Amino acid sequence: MKTYLECIPCFVRQAYDALRQVTGDEELMHRVLRRVLAASAEFRMDLSPPEMAQAIHRIIREETGDPDPYAEIKARSNAAALRLLEEARPLVEGATDPFAMAIRFSIAGNIMDFALTSNMDELDLSSLVERTIRKTLDDAAVDALRQAVREARTILVLGDNAGEIVFDRLLVERMLPAKVLYAVKGSPVINDATRDDARVSGMDRLAEIVDTGNDAPGTLLAQCSATFLEHFKTADLVVAKGQANYETLSEADRDLFFLTQVKCPVIGRDLNKPVGSWVVQYHRGGGHV
Amino acid sequence: MKTYLECIPCFVRQAYDALRQVTGDEELMHRVLRRVLAASAEFRMDLSPPEMAQAIHRIIREETGDPDPYAEIKARSNAAALRLLEEARPLVEGATDPFAMAIRFSIAGNIMDFALTSNMDELDLSSLVERTIRKTLDDAAVDALRQAVREARTILVLGDNAGEIVFDRLLVERMLPAKVLYAVKGSPVINDATRDDARVSGMDRLAEIVDTGNDAPGTLLAQCSATFLEHFKTADLVVAKGQANYETLSEADRDLFFLTQVKCPVIGRDLNKPVGSWVVQYHRGGGHV
Repeated sequence: MKTYLECIPCFVRQAYDALRQVTGDEELMHRVLRRVLAASAEFRMDLSPPEMAQAIHRIIREETGDPDPYAEIKARSNAAALRLLEEARPLVEGATDPFAMAIRFSIAGNIMDFALTSNMDELDLSSLVERTIRKTLDDAAVDALRQAVREARTILVLGDNAGEIVFDRLLVERMLPAKVLYAVKGSPVINDATRDDARVSGMDRLAEIVDTGNDAPGTLLAQCSATFLEHFKTADLVVAKGQANYETLSEADRDLFFLTQVKCPVIGRDLNKPVGSWVVQYHRGGGHV
Repeated sequence: MKTYLECIPCFVRQAYDALRQVTGDEELMHRVLRRVLAASAEFRMDLSPPEMAQAIHRIIREETGDPDPYAEIKARSNAAALRLLEEARPLVEGATDPFAMAIRFSIAGNIMDFALTSNMDELDLSSLVERTIRKTLDDAAVDALRQAVREARTILVLGDNAGEIVFDRLLVERMLPAKVLYAVKGSPVINDATRDDARVSGMDRLAEIVDTGNDAPGTLLAQCSATFLEHFKTADLVVAKGQANYETLSEADRDLFFLTQVKCPVIGRDLNKPVGSWVVQYHRGGGHV
């Protein structure tokens, strides 16, 4: 997906909000914001929005001198999610359709992204379950994904944030006995899951952990490692989680499924869904892979 | 008031929103946004936010080649306000405290500022009256203003937006028989009222219209004409309307009254009022004038 003009104010807002989470140093913030503004002015609109996020978070890491400014936020997200996981599991196992319920919790986990702007401690299971159960999902798309999981021997799940990765365990458990590869980022960017989060979440005991080989949110194929690209190409099924994966793979040249919440109007228009909706969407890559 | 880091994302957002109102030309918009981003990066934080708005709107006027891009929006705001004025007047005249009610409508008129982001036609008197009547005002400050009006022979009202200027008539009518000067901008900036709006609104039949002599929102004394500064210095009473006047005059060296809605958290903190509240505030200038 290309970048829209509408994304530009959002880049600056997100940079400010993300920065506010990791420092109270006004001079440092101003220095970062000045660089973000300059980088936004130069940004090529044919690139996808996560490429701007990548640039912003490189600036934040450089200026703060901290290679992982969101480490603490990620740790809190994982801890909160682990606390909720044990309560969520019986709801999946006891559901009429456990696979569909696992998908729901996996998409619900995307709420942990709000770690950046809200208080993790306030997140309780009841509010999560409420969201999880009342949301409309595309039943046909869920059935198509169910069928694809049944037929696949190797499944690549493209992960999103810390915290969310914990809930993804419920989905990955329903993908077994296929061989599941779970992709995290090659190095820290915002609150995206890395190999550390794969360990803390316990995901590494269910799936083989692979990484994109880079620090872009989503999956920027042009920057991914050869190893990752081989997995991406050869997996029988790819499931891509979160908005950044949609933004970077909406024109990908292979079949895959997107699982995401629609959090912004630009992506809503691209997907033809209102903001706030939950998406299970099959993407047809044209059979070139 | 100085500019806070929090204002920076808002500058970019406001530029985008304002631009969207006057053009659908994506290339033009991108050109303007790039210049706004660069200007925001260079902006001196010891200046007040309206100085950034002045820069942004100079860029918009330059790039669109239109000296008054919001002319149509201002015309619609004035027309909508004139339609509501005749319904509002009996409510002022029939009120227990007509002066306080006139102040309420004058502050309510600040809602016309939403012209930039909403549909004027949807604004009806009932919703305006509802807001107008239920808001809490500082009664002591209203009484202080009432007393100041009674004692003043010359009153300078610093206007804000088109549309709003129509409702200000109700207040100016309650200031007579003092000699009232009503200040508009020296030339167009956003939807701020100019001499044209003073005529269309009928304000010119109640008050002597003066202008700031420049194109800054609010009242940037450093840029105002000598004529304006003389009025500002010698008026027995100054009433400053809207946020931009607060931002530019919050450290002014003369006594005045602010009448405004609190529309942003930065100004809310400065005034120690929640966003959404309505303010009648006496400002003491230290007696140096």
